[in-house]
Amino acid sequence: MYLRRVIVLLVAWSCAVSGSRAGILAAPGAAERWGIFELALRGPAEGNPFLEVELAAEFSDGERTMRVSGFYDGEDVYRVRFMPDTLGTWSFTTRSNRAELSGIAGSFETTPAAPGNHGPVGVVNRWHFAYADGTPYRPFGTTIYGWAHRPETLQEETLRTLAEAPFNKVRMLLTPQNFGRQVPRPERFPYEGTPPRDWDYTRFNPDFFRHIERRIGDLRDLGIECDLILFHPYGRMWGLDEMGPENDDRLVRYVVARFAAFRNIWWSMANEYDFVRWKQPEDWDRCFQVVQASDPYGRLRSIHNGFQIYNATLPWVTHASIQSGAAVEEAGRAELLRSAFRKPIVYDEVKYEGDIERRWGQLDGREMVHRFWSGKVVGTYVGHGECLTNPESIMWISQGGRLRGESPPRIQFLRTILEDGPAEGIEPIDKWQEPAGMGGRPGRYYLLYFGREKPTSWTFELFKNGIADGMTFTVDVIDTWDMTIERVPGLFTTKKKDAYHFVDAEGRTVSLPGKPGMALRILRVGDTSNDPELEVPIE
Amino acid sequence: MYLRRVIVLLVAWSCAVSGSRAGILAAPGAAERWGIFELALRGPAEGNPFLEVELAAEFSDGERTMRVSGFYDGEDVYRVRFMPDTLGTWSFTTRSNRAELSGIAGSFETTPAAPGNHGPVGVVNRWHFAYADGTPYRPFGTTIYGWAHRPETLQEETLRTLAEAPFNKVRMLLTPQNFGRQVPRPERFPYEGTPPRDWDYTRFNPDFFRHIERRIGDLRDLGIECDLILFHPYGRMWGLDEMGPENDDRLVRYVVARFAAFRNIWWSMANEYDFVRWKQPEDWDRCFQVVQASDPYGRLRSIHNGFQIYNATLPWVTHASIQSGAAVEEAGRAELLRSAFRKPIVYDEVKYEGDIERRWGQLDGREMVHRFWSGKVVGTYVGHGECLTNPESIMWISQGGRLRGESPPRIQFLRTILEDGPAEGIEPIDKWQEPAGMGGRPGRYYLLYFGREKPTSWTFELFKNGIADGMTFTVDVIDTWDMTIERVPGLFTTKKKDAYHFVDAEGRTVSLPGKPGMALRILRVGDTSNDPELEVPIE
Repeated sequence: MYLRRVIVLLVAWSCAVSGSRAGILAAPGAAERWGIFELALRGPAEGNPFLEVELAAEFSDGERTMRVSGFYDGEDVYRVRFMPDTLGTWSFTTRSNRAELSGIAGSFETTPAAPGNHGPVGVVNRWHFAYADGTPYRPFGTTIYGWAHRPETLQEETLRTLAEAPFNKVRMLLTPQNFGRQVPRPERFPYEGTPPRDWDYTRFNPDFFRHIERRIGDLRDLGIECDLILFHPYGRMWGLDEMGPENDDRLVRYVVARFAAFRNIWWSMANEYDFVRWKQPEDWDRCFQVVQASDPYGRLRSIHNGFQIYNATLPWVTHASIQSGAAVEEAGRAELLRSAFRKPIVYDEVKYEGDIERRWGQLDGREMVHRFWSGKVVGTYVGHGECLTNPESIMWISQGGRLRGESPPRIQFLRTILEDGPAEGIEPIDKWQEPAGMGGRPGRYYLLYFGREKPTSWTFELFKNGIADGMTFTVDVIDTWDMTIERVPGLFTTKKKDAYHFVDAEGRTVSLPGKPGMALRILRVGDTSNDPELEVPIE
Repeated sequence: MYLRRVIVLLVAWSCAVSGSRAGILAAPGAAERWGIFELALRGPAEGNPFLEVELAAEFSDGERTMRVSGFYDGEDVYRVRFMPDTLGTWSFTTRSNRAELSGIAGSFETTPAAPGNHGPVGVVNRWHFAYADGTPYRPFGTTIYGWAHRPETLQEETLRTLAEAPFNKVRMLLTPQNFGRQVPRPERFPYEGTPPRDWDYTRFNPDFFRHIERRIGDLRDLGIECDLILFHPYGRMWGLDEMGPENDDRLVRYVVARFAAFRNIWWSMANEYDFVRWKQPEDWDRCFQVVQASDPYGRLRSIHNGFQIYNATLPWVTHASIQSGAAVEEAGRAELLRSAFRKPIVYDEVKYEGDIERRWGQLDGREMVHRFWSGKVVGTYVGHGECLTNPESIMWISQGGRLRGESPPRIQFLRTILEDGPAEGIEPIDKWQEPAGMGGRPGRYYLLYFGREKPTSWTFELFKNGIADGMTFTVDVIDTWDMTIERVPGLFTTKKKDAYHFVDAEGRTVSLPGKPGMALRILRVGDTSNDPELEVPIE
């Protein structure tokens, strides 16, 4: 197998590239499926290549043709990056307004995805996500806004922390936040010159973007999606929030051209978009559309709000990215935005575990975990953040480093439970009446979260959908804080109680310890694949 | 004044109508502002006038021209109805594909609105409503689906009940509900013939529509908006939910032509639209668009859901009409759809006060009142319904008759409180953190509702928006069930507590009786019109 692959590579390399060869710096003969094929070309460096040179390539596997923009990477080097999503031979041809970059053609072989490479994440089942190979993806995100702009040693520590953490998504800022004098200036800026006075918004600093893409790649290699935030209101002194539409759009196109081929990239138009004073709502609509038009892969697109929730029903939004201090305090609230937007709901910011003076950073670990459960149990996705004060003055949400909070192990515990659950994702079981608490798949799998209640017992009772008399279930008692799962002895057998509910035929109840943060997992016993009762439409 | 009006009328009558006069049955010389001008014409009765005769008129006040469809009213009579919204002279000319109905021109005078006529209701301040003359309109709706299809004496009783009730909006079905054998068949049906076998969907029964419009007029005269439901899933045996797009659209156009001139008409595309099996989501989008295109006045448009909430951000939706058994259980939930849709939210169905077996009709009066307060306090609007069993077997929500519940007087109490409040409507004061409970206008007016909590005291505390040190407030303790308002002795003076809140300078608290359903009204003392602090953007 290995030998055959080497031969393919050699054959591909030897015959794949045609046309003007003078400018070709690299054109690999093979690329991994959902990996990156990168064509490097030598081209003009005079004038302003960022403005004056257009470069794109068409890639075809014989059935589909995809148009991909290239970009100038400085020092007379141009690159075109492409993520092949089918196995076999892909051919390409470049187009440019410069002869030496135009008409370069070639081909390469796509090799099977390596273990751990499941492809990019997309939306499935309306409210959920999966990788391209069908593996479910359940977002367990954290926020580390500026980690890629901090000193190298801190970035490496952040990556080591992430390797051990329960998170599979990181929200991070493309451009640095201005902390004033509290924090040293970043080493790199996105434009040539010194911000903001002698910045030239028409000349990108390739080194800055190379660094960001290195970090995107690091996240990918850890199995972490990169939710990249294009704009934010925290760079005010550097002018990054008031460059104007033309510069904004050029930045967006450059970023998409460079990063879109990374299978783990998600586009977040902004953080707290409504706090960016220099932009109007229509600027954000346009930003989405520019991304949509330039990204050949249709990567996930969202925008994070301050106070004003963006209309996630708009066609260019793939999922909602919500900040709210209150929406996941209980499951009944969490569910409502799902019903309103009918797209995946990611509560990326629900306040952070922390001990700072600002009210958004004062959750204790228990409340952070409570919010995760409240949202997750009704089929929405909740994100983590941490701002605990510490001697180093390095807070996770802004700089990365180490995690110090109590919530991450409990978040991992929840993640494991959901990964053991239905691949399709879980849905609220009876949202019209009782959105709080119970999610799952009717007749098959239920999670019931009691939140801040402190019940001492629970009478076995399931909503009618998917249930008939005589079905048997096991019940597990889950302590979301102590991270224990205990199977209740014996089975529960359903018996119709009234027009809405089924109870246990013997009226059995489940004992609970009278403390908050308890949950139940209720599993159908035996093979359920032939149950007609399971054909319940889940709206 | 009276004499002058009579003269105007006579002059107008004598000279206003020109063109072919043979067919004119009525063309009044005057109409009340926001009343109805009705032109009646004699025309062809042969063939099928509903299908074959087109009639419209253009009305102009010299500045605007409005195109209004006419309709066939049976027995060779055609009518064109128009609601003039400006004072002065309006002229008109008819257009038709029949010569005898075309080119009829004339004019009439618009006289000032009579007392109690505030014009039609529209959306103001994004989340609220007002009449055309600027008078605030705060929906306090009730549901009486089939009242207009019940026996005459019962209809009259319903109107007498409404005259004394706290409601200013009625949700009602255009076409009758099929109750099977439980309830006698309605006297009138919308089509000629007997449903459904020998119905002719191309021939309306004018008597049916005359009756409905008489009831719309009765509601108008009581100051009640008519939220008319065009389609519903409850007439299945009569085929009304499966007529097909062509018949649907013809019905919609006929209804709009007949009723749109009534200033109190609102269009609700459907009740429980997602339970109408024969229609797809795109049918509802089209239905909205047909209404929008045919209604020259742009009357309010909504659609009521079963389980699946319709996307109220769509441009043809003026406000959300929500059914949910859970969304107004607490204010924090109620607020979320407001933030999601950014239009007025009318929770038209939140379960009903009742004692029936179905879970949507089991609220006790206290819970109904609780739901009203939970929604209203955050600037959304909650609707009433009643299905209490009774010896006559006549339930308010389906047939009208008498109100028997405990909630209506308390709803009136709440209505009076809100009518004493800010004309602009109230908004959640701090929805990011604490949507539950407090609404009002920052720095000026606050309502705080404690819901199911049973506090024994409340420490005076207001969110920072609109507040500065040294402002003085009074506090009223409101018992939402016993309908009492008690002013707490003395004034409260603000003093900054932390980055978010102000408290009383002397740390005063308010004593509360430790029971559920309590509220506070907090009013700024003195003239606040020059307060710069009040210039707080309310998102």
